[in-house]
Amino acid sequence: MGIEIEYKFLVKDDSWREAAYKAVPMAQGYINDQAAMDSGAQRASVRVRIAGEEAFLNLKSRDMGPTRQEFDYPIPLGDARALLALCVGGTIEKRRHYVNHAGHVWEIDEFLGDNAGLMVAEIELAAAGEDFDKPVWAGADVTDLPRYYNLALASHPYSRWSETERAAVDLV
Amino acid sequence: MGIEIEYKFLVKDDSWREAAYKAVPMAQGYINDQAAMDSGAQRASVRVRIAGEEAFLNLKSRDMGPTRQEFDYPIPLGDARALLALCVGGTIEKRRHYVNHAGHVWEIDEFLGDNAGLMVAEIELAAAGEDFDKPVWAGADVTDLPRYYNLALASHPYSRWSETERAAVDLV
Repeated sequence: MGIEIEYKFLVKDDSWREAAYKAVPMAQGYINDQAAMDSGAQRASVRVRIAGEEAFLNLKSRDMGPTRQEFDYPIPLGDARALLALCVGGTIEKRRHYVNHAGHVWEIDEFLGDNAGLMVAEIELAAAGEDFDKPVWAGADVTDLPRYYNLALASHPYSRWSETERAAVDLV
Repeated sequence: MGIEIEYKFLVKDDSWREAAYKAVPMAQGYINDQAAMDSGAQRASVRVRIAGEEAFLNLKSRDMGPTRQEFDYPIPLGDARALLALCVGGTIEKRRHYVNHAGHVWEIDEFLGDNAGLMVAEIELAAAGEDFDKPVWAGADVTDLPRYYNLALASHPYSRWSETERAAVDLV
């Protein structure tokens, strides 16, 4: 078990691409739905992820904001494929790019499929309150906006967002 | 991933105890609630189990009847304790006894705490349709009765069952 302290930002432009040193295709889904988390009926999300040739089962506590309990376990690829078929909501497809910036690794998710057009940058910190430099390509802080979380995107993908929901992107 | 083919029976008396060769104390809980499964909002249950000094994360498909997809992963004991705190419903406590009978291992769950008084015997088969001998101490087949499943017991324990729900036990 670890404590995850993570901030999410929208991405303003493509200037990060020159500093990207790795990209991994990912497919992921959720065993539980967003509604169960919203209603408080469930206290943790359960995610199945295939990342390149590896697969993982991940649980995260429901706490909003940057800090959450996180549990991550490697599982066989065949299991992950079978578990994805048991997920509710859609399978999220994305390309995760890794970028070094000012001593931190940033992960930039370039969403595909039903979420194409959305790009979110994440930085994971070792401790709450740890300083980090916000790159020029990083825009609005969406850490506290549930609709940008992958769990929410599985049931309400970017392609189905309303004008109002999308407008927040343009405000950056 | 495996396919679990399992039958559940009530236990009529204590005559199995002389053939029991092992007993393991277990504590388990569920990340999701029964309602999510009943409504079809979720297709798999997610169980956290501490068995003696070992711990496991387990996912099972929702299919009723004896056959289900099952995924079982060992996890650190400390993780299991933290995950149990994130479970919904109560923690199920039981003592699982292992009994050899006619070439099969039977697992007899003697429930404690909120489910004290309930005893359920399970047999796991290698293939659907495989023959097995039903021991004299095994009573009614409850394989198709959801309330005897641990997931249901977590939110509706035996101590809170109505006369009608309990009556089925007496009918054995």
